[in-house]
This record gives sequence, structure tokens and C-alpha cells, in this order.
Amino acid sequence: MTRNIALKLMYVGTAYHGWQVQKRDVTVAETLEKALATVVCHPVKLTGAGRTDAGVHAETYIANFRTASSIPCDRIPLAVNTRLPDDIVVVKATEVSEGFNAIGSCLKKEYTYRIYNSRIRNAFYVDRAWFYPKPLDEAVMQAAADRFVGTHDFAAVRSVGTNVKSTVRTVHYFQIARSGDLIECRVCANGFLYNMVRAMVGTCVYAAEGKFPPEAVTEILENRNRTAAGPTVPPGGLYMTKLWYEEDVL
Amino acid sequence: MTRNIALKLMYVGTAYHGWQVQKRDVTVAETLEKALATVVCHPVKLTGAGRTDAGVHAETYIANFRTASSIPCDRIPLAVNTRLPDDIVVVKATEVSEGFNAIGSCLKKEYTYRIYNSRIRNAFYVDRAWFYPKPLDEAVMQAAADRFVGTHDFAAVRSVGTNVKSTVRTVHYFQIARSGDLIECRVCANGFLYNMVRAMVGTCVYAAEGKFPPEAVTEILENRNRTAAGPTVPPGGLYMTKLWYEEDVL
Repeated sequence: MTRNIALKLMYVGTAYHGWQVQKRDVTVAETLEKALATVVCHPVKLTGAGRTDAGVHAETYIANFRTASSIPCDRIPLAVNTRLPDDIVVVKATEVSEGFNAIGSCLKKEYTYRIYNSRIRNAFYVDRAWFYPKPLDEAVMQAAADRFVGTHDFAAVRSVGTNVKSTVRTVHYFQIARSGDLIECRVCANGFLYNMVRAMVGTCVYAAEGKFPPEAVTEILENRNRTAAGPTVPPGGLYMTKLWYEEDVL
Repeated sequence: MTRNIALKLMYVGTAYHGWQVQKRDVTVAETLEKALATVVCHPVKLTGAGRTDAGVHAETYIANFRTASSIPCDRIPLAVNTRLPDDIVVVKATEVSEGFNAIGSCLKKEYTYRIYNSRIRNAFYVDRAWFYPKPLDEAVMQAAADRFVGTHDFAAVRSVGTNVKSTVRTVHYFQIARSGDLIECRVCANGFLYNMVRAMVGTCVYAAEGKFPPEAVTEILENRNRTAAGPTVPPGGLYMTKLWYEEDVL
């Protein structure tokens, strides 16, 4: 009998070339697949909730794999964690239905982008927040962010590179909040295009810099023109923070 | 004219063999002295507020040096930071009186020790909090911590290695607080012996583990016996967090 197991994960992405297994570089999925294989005693193929890029982190991430092993789910986290480097952690394992798929079954996702906005950088946020020394008005950023909420064609804020059938997505919320020198941008959608969060945040920052008024975001989206939007901000500030599924895997 | 300059610093200690300049290993002071020398155009000797050990961090740290340079203080942070690795930051520079000395003029200091207390480790706290998987009762830890407050001989909670005239110190407060899985131990004293904070925290953890009742701390101190107290906990959880001076350097 093959079982389908969902893993709840957490990782610091700094040392990895993203989630997805690649030929050359060390990735989170590859590192996990090797550790899992020694626990279940056969090769493992993981399906992840999304292709986080090099340097991107996950406070919460879901992946699933099939196994013939009868190891109880509550023993998997500790067994795998002892075989993993400290920057990747298996938090929980749950047996799921045969049809469960970490990406296909995902109802919506939340990413959080962190900006350290102070004249002087903070040693503790290196690779964990984007250091931005000029003052940013989070109210202007929020006005720009509001324009992304709803169902739109997001072609203007994606990087070309992956084939997708449609560039239409639904953003459920996009909240910008400052706490001291830290600005947190939380965005939830039914799905994200390649680099979409980082390009949306870059567009909010451009609006705060006065490069265009926040209302211009609507037109930028309508024109589907990537060069009119803001830049793709660096990966170290980006975290996958929440996921929603029908099955109880979190 | 020689000026005396105080630097307010912040650093992540993971990559360094402590504050103090050593023959072989890379230290925070040595890294800073080299960067400062290129800014003021002469060799620099730093005096630090305390000898933080390898792997210990500083959210706030004060050091001072003498210079013949006329560089304005408000230009020092950015000038030095561009020559420093990202894990050491000069936050502020202040010209101080001739007699100011970062260690001698320090009235009191606060260290914070962070314990990540959860069955599963947290990838984001690697080298930044001590991972302790068994449940710890912070009320018992606080009862033990209370016994350290006041003026005592702290010989039982220091490591031998540095020569000191007296092992008597005054602990002003020692507060243990839990926030979710994170336990923060904040301790303020007029001075600390070598490894004193880490040995006091280890003693509070031993009390929480039931190795001795919290009230036993008083006797442990009185007997001046290091082996009766708890262990020296790992350096990655320790942060210098506050300093007090008569001159306005913070």
C-alpha cells in the first residue's frame, strides 16, 4: 500500500537555490528528498506548494510525497530532522488522501515581504529583510497595494520564464504595516505568477518614491507592461507565511 | 588634538571569535579596527564595553577609540559601514570627554539570553537562540533567577580564566518572560564575571528541570562551588542588549 504524506516545513532559504530540484545547485527539495530517503528506505520525490526562488524563506511550507514505508507520521519529523541541516525543519507529517497534491490542492497562499527601512542597516536582518535606507511612507505603499486586490491580469508584475496558461489571478488581500523600522507587506492570492510578489512590492515602493501615483497601478496592470511597473525586489525579504488546504495538514 | 570617540555598535557574533582582539582568530574588534583605520587614516585601538565570547551577539554595544582625524561624527557610521561586513554595524558615533572609557565608564549592562523552547526546532533561530526541546516552566526559572538579584559573591557562576580582584557583583534585575516558544532571560548588573550570564541561565534551567529547588541557588552562591550550579549554556542565545553611561553615547 502506498501512502501519501504531507509535510509541514520551515526553512531559511539563504543557503539554497530555491525549492525546486535543479541539475547543478543545492535546493531545499533535493536536501529534503535525500534525508527522507534514508528514513523511508527508498528514493523520494517531493511535490512542493510553490517554487520559491533562491534566497526566499518559508515560515510555513507544505510538500507531499508517496511512500511504501509504514513509519508512523508522528515519528517522521524527529527522524528526518536529525538528518537535515539546521536551516530546514520538518514541523509535522500528516497522512493525506490519495488525491492530495501540495500545489494542486492549495486553495490560497500568503507571502510576506519584509523591508528594513532605516538610515542605518540592521545586522540581524541581513538576508532576512530588504534594507532600504530612504524613508518610505507606508500609507502611499498601501494605496498602491490596494490597486492589486481583486481579480486581474497580473502580466505586468511577473517575470517571464515559466509557462502558464493564464496570467489572471485573484489577490484576496495586500496589507502593508510598519512596526518601528520594519515594514511588512502581506499578500494573499489564489496563486502567484513567477516573481509576482517581489514585482508588486517593487511597484508599491516606486509609488512611495513618487515615480508614479498609487492610482497608476490600475493602468500599469491593464497595459500588461512589465517595464512600467516597479523592479523585482531582492529575494532575502520574501517569506512564504501561510497556506490554506481543505485537508488538515497545517 | 586627539579626540575620544564612542561608537554605538550592533553585531551578529556567529562568524566571530568574540569581541577581543586575539592572535589567531577573526574578532569583532579587529574587523572594526581595520575598517576604522581606513577611514581615519591611522591605526586604531578600540576599547570595548565587555569581552563578549565567540558566537555572542550585541543588539547594542559601546566601544571607544582615540583619533587625530577631524572627520565629523555624523559621517563616521556610513563611512565605516561601507568598509564592514554586513554582520557588524556602526549605528552612531559621539565625541566624548577625554576620560570616557567604554568599559570603565559603564554604569551597568543588560544581557538577554534567548531559549527556543519547543519540541521542534525553529530554522530562523539557529545560532540566535538556544534550542531546548523539553518543556521549561518559566515560573520555576524566575524563582531561581530571583535568588541571584542583589549583591552577592558570584564565584559559583563564573568560569575561571580571567583575573578579577573581586567576584562580588550586584544584579539589579533578572527577569524571565515567555512569549510563545521563546523564553527571554534579561539580566542587568553593575558588571559580569566571565560566563556569568550563561552559568546563571544554566542554573535556572537546572532548577526548572528539578535538579534542585529554586531556593537552593542561595546556598550554591554561598558555597562558591561552580560544580554545584547549572551548566554554561551555549553562546548563540546570548545578546548584549542595554548599556548605561553618564555621557550620552546611546
